[in-house]
Amino acid sequence: MGRWEPNARGRLEQSALELYLERGFEQTTVAEIARRAGLTERTFFRHFTDKREVLFSAPLREHLATAIAATPAATAPIDAVAAALAAIAVLFEERREFARQRRAVIIANTGLQERELIKMASLAAAMADALRERGVGDTTASLTAEVGIAAFKVAFERWIDAADPESFAQIIRESLDELAVIVRPAQDS
Amino acid sequence: MGRWEPNARGRLEQSALELYLERGFEQTTVAEIARRAGLTERTFFRHFTDKREVLFSAPLREHLATAIAATPAATAPIDAVAAALAAIAVLFEERREFARQRRAVIIANTGLQERELIKMASLAAAMADALRERGVGDTTASLTAEVGIAAFKVAFERWIDAADPESFAQIIRESLDELAVIVRPAQDS
Repeated sequence: MGRWEPNARGRLEQSALELYLERGFEQTTVAEIARRAGLTERTFFRHFTDKREVLFSAPLREHLATAIAATPAATAPIDAVAAALAAIAVLFEERREFARQRRAVIIANTGLQERELIKMASLAAAMADALRERGVGDTTASLTAEVGIAAFKVAFERWIDAADPESFAQIIRESLDELAVIVRPAQDS
Repeated sequence: MGRWEPNARGRLEQSALELYLERGFEQTTVAEIARRAGLTERTFFRHFTDKREVLFSAPLREHLATAIAATPAATAPIDAVAAALAAIAVLFEERREFARQRRAVIIANTGLQERELIKMASLAAAMADALRERGVGDTTASLTAEVGIAAFKVAFERWIDAADPESFAQIIRESLDELAVIVRPAQDS
């Protein structure tokens, strides 16, 4: 009851992921998550509003917006986006196993896949807004943010699937560079 | 009952959009849509499974996949994607007012916005699959398809908002060209 539980949040997250993987997300209750973590439901609800939030609580939007705002004014939009993605990549690097298990849970559930798409769209929107606040034109801001998220998504799969991965930030940078080769200007043909 | 109604589908679509705009999507019933179109509910259900499908019935995935498969084998992935987007742009051009009203309905409803995101993601997946079937590498296929959809989304907004629009296909091409400028290779700085 209100007493401090060492790393309660991390234990709840780990228990939740284990149960989602074992039984499926729908079949898991908050009571079961709390029990496996050796904590109470009340403690669960001090950290998360519901069992879905365990998977979607990372404040990535805020990190992206802050990182874009922190880049020098002269930074090109795509480089501001690259810097922001590198900033959140650090958060993922610290928890690769969590990210991998989380992905497996989401792949297994259509509703969670939809939630993940919405989250990704909201990340793109947050970056586009942050770019507009720097005076980047509307269309360029949207395109740059969407392209950044596209590179992020593809890089995430490569990073998670790699047996012996490079840094996630490095893979994102490579994906952005690959995009530059893919989307070359139209040929006069 | 079963008799042929001239342009029943188009009349149902128009009546549905009018009602969604007047009353909101949630507040509109299939019975009201059919009545306004001067048709029966039974006729509605011969054309659509539910009132949401009126907004999401265009077979864009199939058109994109077919168009990519139809481009010459030597076509670069981004050009195959551009050709596919140009092919569906034609469908939109024929019905700009429908597209504009549909967008207004979707903007007004969170559930429909989510559905639209899912539809866009499925279009990207369909293009990526079509590219893989041509032997394009996994990462390149995903990146190219995602970038194509990013350009499409931004171009759609520009096309719908323009007072005196150029062709939608042309605006998509311009967005792809702008992307090429935005995502230039990393500078050695």
